Amino acid sequence: MIDRKTSLLAAAVEEIARCGTRGMRVDEVAKRAGVSVSLIYHHFNDRSTLLQAALDHIGSQADDYTKHTDGTGRENVLATLLDEIQDSPTVRTNSAAWGELRDCAVFDDALRPTIEKQTARWNADLAELIRSGQQDGSIGDACDADRLASVLTATTEGVSGRWLAGILTTDDARQHIQLAVDALLDAADRSGA
Amino acid sequence: MIDRKTSLLAAAVEEIARCGTRGMRVDEVAKRAGVSVSLIYHHFNDRSTLLQAALDHIGSQADDYTKHTDGTGRENVLATLLDEIQDSPTVRTNSAAWGELRDCAVFDDALRPTIEKQTARWNADLAELIRSGQQDGSIGDACDADRLASVLTATTEGVSGRWLAGILTTDDARQHIQLAVDALLDAADRSGA
Repeated sequence: MIDRKTSLLAAAVEEIARCGTRGMRVDEVAKRAGVSVSLIYHHFNDRSTLLQAALDHIGSQADDYTKHTDGTGRENVLATLLDEIQDSPTVRTNSAAWGELRDCAVFDDALRPTIEKQTARWNADLAELIRSGQQDGSIGDACDADRLASVLTATTEGVSGRWLAGILTTDDARQHIQLAVDALLDAADRSGA
Repeated sequence: MIDRKTSLLAAAVEEIARCGTRGMRVDEVAKRAGVSVSLIYHHFNDRSTLLQAALDHIGSQADDYTKHTDGTGRENVLATLLDEIQDSPTVRTNSAAWGELRDCAVFDDALRPTIEKQTARWNADLAELIRSGQQDGSIGDACDADRLASVLTATTEGVSGRWLAGILTTDDARQHIQLAVDALLDAADRSGA
């Protein structure tokens, strides 16, 4: 069962995806969630707190729909990143809101630490999969797992932005990610990326 | 000398970078450019036309600061993409506005064709450099230049977004791009990406 706070965050994420970070109005979030504005302020002190909580919510949602631990390290790396591109309303809304929040962090000092924290967490999770691939022999062990993870997640973000904007189809976007993952992991096999 | 229309577009791009696409107010663009609102509507019929013209302006600006034709094809591919990450106000503003417009195209049907056109143009220019590298022998000729170009520009967009948000330093962002370009072009050498 989804608790009240989670349903408020889901409404905020939808509102951000549709109206942008600066365009997100707390009264519209309340309307979307079917609650009063004061209830939102009861759970989240102010607008900035709500935005940060929305970012954390996006991160935990993405954890849920991208979890892969049953293949080799290499298979898990690929499957996890491919799952960022899914024809599902949750994935699209989540990714669109993430993009809006990240772009807004260019000028929003309050938002930036949370974006950094969630990006670092994503990178750390992927680096963990890369290291498990280095242990099981599916990924070369001469590479810097942390750097590689950061390049791979940044690439995925770029592809996801194109996909959300309708420039790449779902199939094309997934092929783009596959190509980049293969190239970067193969390079890691050889030279120590 | 910069003509009047160009200076209006530069003001619009700055306003979009700072306030988002939906937050761009035509009166603020006018104030920034030191002109009347009616002059803006004289040059651009409506808000949507102004946004599309701003996108085209971003494309032509990027052409200017990323042009490389004096090395091998491979060197030109790398130099062109690295130039998307420069500590220059023009590059930062241009890239931030591009990101805001692309993200907005998720829900804005009027904007999407212009984003697609500018992305296709960027991809075509890069594919041209890749093909020249295939001719001069600096890039393997077994790869699909168009697909590779699309993956490389999407990767660059992802890295650029992180850099603009302050998550990656300029040096780190450029190293990310270098790593991806090397891996993808090396992969092209071997297998036909």
